[in-house]
Amino acid sequence: MPLDATASGLFPIAPTPFTPDGAIDHGSVETLIGRYLAAGATGVTVLGIMGEAPKLEPEEALALTARFIKGFGALPVIVGVSAPGFAAMRALARTVTERGAAGVMIAPPPALRTDDQITGYYRQAVEAIGSDIPFVIQDYPLTLSVQMTPKVIRQIVEENPSCVMLKHEDWPGLEKISALRGFQEEGTMRPISILTGNGGLFLDFEMERGADGAMTGYAFPEMLGDVVRLQREGRREEAHDLFDAHLPLLRYEQQQGVGLAVRKYVLMRRGFIASDAQRKPAPALSVAARAEVDYLLARLARQDERARL
Amino acid sequence: MPLDATASGLFPIAPTPFTPDGAIDHGSVETLIGRYLAAGATGVTVLGIMGEAPKLEPEEALALTARFIKGFGALPVIVGVSAPGFAAMRALARTVTERGAAGVMIAPPPALRTDDQITGYYRQAVEAIGSDIPFVIQDYPLTLSVQMTPKVIRQIVEENPSCVMLKHEDWPGLEKISALRGFQEEGTMRPISILTGNGGLFLDFEMERGADGAMTGYAFPEMLGDVVRLQREGRREEAHDLFDAHLPLLRYEQQQGVGLAVRKYVLMRRGFIASDAQRKPAPALSVAARAEVDYLLARLARQDERARL
Amino acid sequence: MPLDATASGLFPIAPTPFTPDGAIDHGSVETLIGRYLAAGATGVTVLGIMGEAPKLEPEEALALTARFIKGFGALPVIVGVSAPGFAAMRALARTVTERGAAGVMIAPPPALRTDDQITGYYRQAVEAIGSDIPFVIQDYPLTLSVQMTPKVIRQIVEENPSCVMLKHEDWPGLEKISALRGFQEEGTMRPISILTGNGGLFLDFEMERGADGAMTGYAFPEMLGDVVRLQREGRREEAHDLFDAHLPLLRYEQQQGVGLAVRKYVLMRRGFIASDAQRKPAPALSVAARAEVDYLLARLARQDERARL
Amino acid sequence: MPLDATASGLFPIAPTPFTPDGAIDHGSVETLIGRYLAAGATGVTVLGIMGEAPKLEPEEALALTARFIKGFGALPVIVGVSAPGFAAMRALARTVTERGAAGVMIAPPPALRTDDQITGYYRQAVEAIGSDIPFVIQDYPLTLSVQMTPKVIRQIVEENPSCVMLKHEDWPGLEKISALRGFQEEGTMRPISILTGNGGLFLDFEMERGADGAMTGYAFPEMLGDVVRLQREGRREEAHDLFDAHLPLLRYEQQQGVGLAVRKYVLMRRGFIASDAQRKPAPALSVAARAEVDYLLARLARQDERARL
Repeated sequence: MPLDATASGLFPIAPTPFTPDGAIDHGSVETLIGRYLAAGATGVTVLGIMGEAPKLEPEEALALTARFIKGFGALPVIVGVSAPGFAAMRALARTVTERGAAGVMIAPPPALRTDDQITGYYRQAVEAIGSDIPFVIQDYPLTLSVQMTPKVIRQIVEENPSCVMLKHEDWPGLEKISALRGFQEEGTMRPISILTGNGGLFLDFEMERGADGAMTGYAFPEMLGDVVRLQREGRREEAHDLFDAHLPLLRYEQQQGVGLAVRKYVLMRRGFIASDAQRKPAPALSVAARAEVDYLLARLARQDERARL
Repeated sequence: MPLDATASGLFPIAPTPFTPDGAIDHGSVETLIGRYLAAGATGVTVLGIMGEAPKLEPEEALALTARFIKGFGALPVIVGVSAPGFAAMRALARTVTERGAAGVMIAPPPALRTDDQITGYYRQAVEAIGSDIPFVIQDYPLTLSVQMTPKVIRQIVEENPSCVMLKHEDWPGLEKISALRGFQEEGTMRPISILTGNGGLFLDFEMERGADGAMTGYAFPEMLGDVVRLQREGRREEAHDLFDAHLPLLRYEQQQGVGLAVRKYVLMRRGFIASDAQRKPAPALSVAARAEVDYLLARLARQDERARL
Repeated sequence: MPLDATASGLFPIAPTPFTPDGAIDHGSVETLIGRYLAAGATGVTVLGIMGEAPKLEPEEALALTARFIKGFGALPVIVGVSAPGFAAMRALARTVTERGAAGVMIAPPPALRTDDQITGYYRQAVEAIGSDIPFVIQDYPLTLSVQMTPKVIRQIVEENPSCVMLKHEDWPGLEKISALRGFQEEGTMRPISILTGNGGLFLDFEMERGADGAMTGYAFPEMLGDVVRLQREGRREEAHDLFDAHLPLLRYEQQQGVGLAVRKYVLMRRGFIASDAQRKPAPALSVAARAEVDYLLARLARQDERARL
Repeated sequence: MPLDATASGLFPIAPTPFTPDGAIDHGSVETLIGRYLAAGATGVTVLGIMGEAPKLEPEEALALTARFIKGFGALPVIVGVSAPGFAAMRALARTVTERGAAGVMIAPPPALRTDDQITGYYRQAVEAIGSDIPFVIQDYPLTLSVQMTPKVIRQIVEENPSCVMLKHEDWPGLEKISALRGFQEEGTMRPISILTGNGGLFLDFEMERGADGAMTGYAFPEMLGDVVRLQREGRREEAHDLFDAHLPLLRYEQQQGVGLAVRKYVLMRRGFIASDAQRKPAPALSVAARAEVDYLLARLARQDERARL
């Protein structure tokens, strides 16, 4: 089933599990899928920045995607297809769609600056991949250095009917969610799904501002799913209590450069993946850092049983 | 008394209080000084980025500095003297030193890239201001876009005897503290004071890695001072408990662009300053954002009496 | 007389002459003014980036401006007033206007990215300095890292009646001139003056695309003025012949970082200023580089008598 | 024969010829090879930035490389292998080497800042591709935003015996060549080949500073080869005369973003390739721009017969 604007809940950004010698660990891929489903995932995103997509060979990327599509069954799989050229983007987008992906995610290239450059890029991208493939805008200025205003996002949405979702990870970004929902209320933008990233650092309030869920890779996807659910049920205090209990670890994971190392280490300790190996080039976690993560896990376990290892 | 490498504890980064029409609010300056001293400040830093220094007229900057020097008495006042030209840097550094400042803080200009450019810049800066004025390196890549390795910092320290302190706000930065303390232990760098910034986001672990204290502007300086003290007394669990209680608000304050608006709003609500006005250009806090801060304050008050307003 | 949208011809960007010990060389200021007038300048711009404005003390900047205003008599003097805060921008803009400046030039701060941020900034700036002071947009992405589309420039022009000129130094930028003149022709933007920068590297074609003249600091302002005049008289081949003769030297001057050193060296050799000293921090010209410039001057002298030294 | 440190002369950066519908134009590849050889090329570089490498499918890139290797016979073909991950870099480097490439070129990823990051990256890259493959450092700060000092380049050369060449396109960069040749003279760096890029904008003086030749894509490779040869024969005036005749066009080609469009247009007009098509996304050349290029070609033809079309 193709992705549409009603998507919500928890879409983990899947890391790519590697063995210590750098091969894809297919066994861990299966484990990961099982754990995500058990955690309440309503979809999943593969080949994102945190999935080390640029380090995969093309055939590896396709094989990995196929496993997630199979494992997630009827649930939507979104595939990152950002590429320097439209030919490669088109080839990947069409191939994964044929194989069952529900939609694709497109990040703007870092050189884009002006509003016209950004909206023009998405028009060209849709022309390239075809307007029949639902797509997600990735709005991640901290890493991509491209800044999209709410008006630019609205223009992309309005110009491209196949745009169904925003992966929101601007920072700060709470006002952006409010502005986009305001556009919808005043009738100047059709509804889209907004899932939020940034490791979840502002998920507590993002849900209150109108987000539909989380699309990020924090090593406790269960917590992300719970906060989304609690907020949608109006159980605000419980949502914040749970979120706050995780914040010290979540904050620790939110370090540019070493963040993925922390995330994979925790996922390994939790049994989601067998090894925390990354493909080179990648920073390693020091002994001191691992001890700090262990300490944070131990403290978290007092409030959330799932952190007891 | 000039600043030296034994400095430690809590050095708040002082905001500049303005009245709603943009004038400096001298009454609030006095209140702020009193509250900082009551919070256990062991020094203070003025004319920093969060002090809106570039928006002050030269005479305003000097007058403000003079009030802090008077108010802090024997405690050290550090003055930000970063400037595009060395003539202006020298003039400001020498003037404030004559009037009683304990040291100055120098940030590298954003265009610097290579190790040689950075070390060369600090040599020239010291030549300009004179080697008799103790100075602090400001290492803040996220905002300044200049990246200094531990080796570069060591070279600056070794080449310039008047360098006595590092304001550490690299992110991630825990390994950098460990590397610098490692240099000291192996005898390849003389000891310096390391105070940490970034709003305190990693203060809990920074102290464990070897920092001497905090130099940042979080709106509860008492918490920063307490965490520094608790960690130095070896009361690790208490330090983390207190820190974690503040983390949701602290994280909220840590938003590029609107962070200072959040900080001033909390300081205003706490009675440290009379108005949260900033000089233009400056982003304002939305009604929703203020409500979120109020909510975080109310939640914090359950664990820390000082947040009860 | 205030600057208006009919301004054209040659507005040199004036360097600030210093003595070798870093003081302003007032004698050279007078010489420079005389040489600019003799070269056919129809105006002048002071306190720009190449005028080392950020390295001047406020009183020095005002004194320098006053000398140019006096020396240029009825001809317009434009003053760079870019500043981190609007209070300082307003103070400088109003002071120099009272003292006879014809207009001010405002560059966008480097952090601006989106169209709305840029247009919003100019609205706020005009509110700050007052709508009675004519102003020039400085569009210089290579150094300022802010990219303005033709539509953004049009919006600034349309929203702010006091905007009378564009200092165009986008690179590449020929299409931008055509686009802006196209807006005028179709009646969607009122006419403005467009003077071009970038050291003159594309002046030959910029005039053909619709520029009104040059505002830049190449060390042979006479050539800039001649090319502007020849193109306006329709003497295309002569314009290109003269331009091409200068291009090897002009290209050599167009080196980020050392460009001003080259420019000041040539101006010194030509007797426009007594010393090529810059205020620190500034790169020096190597012996080899000076020899290369001398060689280029000697070659140029075969085609342009004015290069015979 | 593997590339070594004695390489010199003219290594054109080959564009990838496309048909108007975006397919690789293999006929034009053969023509291009023939014209390069006729122009005196002593080698060639493929899959560079100006070869639109990121827009090629992996198999296309290999096929293109194979044709150049075959066409150049005993002359060295250098292959750009820069990639986000070392696995892909290794795969491409080893494959093209097995198929006859003489060496590979490696650009640093844009995020690198400090000296240690840069030297560490090259160490890891050599570990990945193997120390038996000769490699070229690409030093291109304007596009890659990585700044390498002469000392950093020396360290890379000294740490990695397989480093045999620097593609020098720093800007300004004349002093860098002098510094590197100075290291060789004082015996602190073993000799390497230095070929220069930047479209040739400073080739006249780069040869005088000690460069061994040109590695760039200006649409008149014959001129580049001639200037290299004339300078090596000590015929300085002739070298500058020829260079200066081409400078107006060469400068026009040197426009970020549209430069490749200009280059391909001239190559098409000269019969090197059949179409000036680029793969999307790519900027097009306006009618006015094409007319300007035609005009420059006509002017150039008065001094260089080869521009007569």
